[in-house]
Amino acid sequence: MRSLLLAAVAALLVGAAPAKKSQTPGDVIAASPASAWRAIDPDDLLVIDLAGGGRIVIQLAPQFAPVHVANIKALARGHYWDGATIYRLQDNYVAQWGLNESDKPWPTGVVAKPPAEYTRPLAGLAVRPLGYVDPYAPGVGYADGWPIAYDRKAGWATLTHCYGSVGVGRDLAPDTGTGGELYAVIGGPARALDRNIALVGRVLEGIDRLSALPRGTGDLGFYKDKAQYVPITAIRIASDMPAADRPAFEYLDPQSAVFATWLRVKANRKDDFYEVPAGGVDLCNAAVPIRKKG
Amino acid sequence: MRSLLLAAVAALLVGAAPAKKSQTPGDVIAASPASAWRAIDPDDLLVIDLAGGGRIVIQLAPQFAPVHVANIKALARGHYWDGATIYRLQDNYVAQWGLNESDKPWPTGVVAKPPAEYTRPLAGLAVRPLGYVDPYAPGVGYADGWPIAYDRKAGWATLTHCYGSVGVGRDLAPDTGTGGELYAVIGGPARALDRNIALVGRVLEGIDRLSALPRGTGDLGFYKDKAQYVPITAIRIASDMPAADRPAFEYLDPQSAVFATWLRVKANRKDDFYEVPAGGVDLCNAAVPIRKKG
Repeated sequence: MRSLLLAAVAALLVGAAPAKKSQTPGDVIAASPASAWRAIDPDDLLVIDLAGGGRIVIQLAPQFAPVHVANIKALARGHYWDGATIYRLQDNYVAQWGLNESDKPWPTGVVAKPPAEYTRPLAGLAVRPLGYVDPYAPGVGYADGWPIAYDRKAGWATLTHCYGSVGVGRDLAPDTGTGGELYAVIGGPARALDRNIALVGRVLEGIDRLSALPRGTGDLGFYKDKAQYVPITAIRIASDMPAADRPAFEYLDPQSAVFATWLRVKANRKDDFYEVPAGGVDLCNAAVPIRKKG
Repeated sequence: MRSLLLAAVAALLVGAAPAKKSQTPGDVIAASPASAWRAIDPDDLLVIDLAGGGRIVIQLAPQFAPVHVANIKALARGHYWDGATIYRLQDNYVAQWGLNESDKPWPTGVVAKPPAEYTRPLAGLAVRPLGYVDPYAPGVGYADGWPIAYDRKAGWATLTHCYGSVGVGRDLAPDTGTGGELYAVIGGPARALDRNIALVGRVLEGIDRLSALPRGTGDLGFYKDKAQYVPITAIRIASDMPAADRPAFEYLDPQSAVFATWLRVKANRKDDFYEVPAGGVDLCNAAVPIRKKG
């Protein structure tokens, strides 16, 4: 009986009158109305199948990096990633995949030198502020279902490097990366990268297929031994897949009333296990709730 | 050439006159004087050896949780952990080890019901403030080489749940855990747990031995199949080990001038890869630099 967070189990064992129990964030989600959820467009889902049966599903964010996202769709549809692998795993930082140092020509439709889509204008986004301070930006919150950092004065907004965020590998500026090599954040939020690289999406399913991989022993976590590379058998856009195999997801609308409740509960945990509510939360620990649809 | 953060490699390939290069945090550490480093007491090092040869070294923090830390030393010296395993791995949260639900009697010297050492008085600590805001506490910074959150008004200080932080598994309050079951944070900072559980230290070496383990498929990441348990062959205090096998570490003193430079550079990256300095950093992304000694 000495196990962290075995609250639920212990509550059952106590017997007699249970103590008054405050809501958990999970309770709020479980009671949320269907009307607060928004379907994710299958044309924005990138589906990565690994040798051995694992699947990773990524939601792309054309609102934030339209040229890079269009490239990624063209790369998937042009079968650029045939033979791709996961070839880098740096502990508490990123997993990276693609062809790695390849000279393979780009498929039709790929913009070889995209603009630096590291920020976008704040104008045009309906922002729902987080409501708590952030050490990296004047403002943080949510727009269009995405976590963002922003500056009202300077007028920019950017996606943020949270757990599961997906970005475009690049070399030194002015190179911005084309989209052929992608990375996902698999550790603590790598927020210093915000505004320095193009973020294009987030992992909705299968992040543990990346985070639990062996760490690379080469510089920056690259696998030294190519035998460690993890083969990718297919990278597709969900809307191109047969209906039976096509994944579907929805997100809780950050503009909804239930999201506000969820965020308040998340920042002020006082359910069974918690004695002292934090009274705050950081953006990356308040990731937009996502669930499978249907 | 499409690889994230291959800055060093690319710089070599550019040829001609290299662009002016700003310092990296690593440059600051490499140039630090020996006088800025403090040796870590071998009596505060918990050394965990895994079947198969991996080693995890944890620094204990008696300044913050004296009763729990004394318990942990008594448990190690009393061979309580013979037969221990890693039995829980929850993605982006914690790894946990010990005997799990055991009725084994406590060795001599173990306090079965320790006080709730979740905070300690701020008085008596020389605090070096981080200098950037935090969503979880009025103040964050460093004391005695440890990352802390604090409240000058209320007078408390606490260790923080950052990547690699180690705490004591417990059940529902008023249970505070004895120290027999320990966990380490292996994902994003779990800061909502601050002040709700006893933190006792941090992993100095071998965190990737935990973070890369398969994720448990039971509730809360417990391994469903006991065949997945990772056997621990020994848990010892370094000062009890033969000199030849005893690990030794030192930390960069947060009160030193070079630490101030390192922190400023860390919060304002403008070396080759970075275009836009963040102008801030969060406590958990500015972990106290640690290195092997000798």
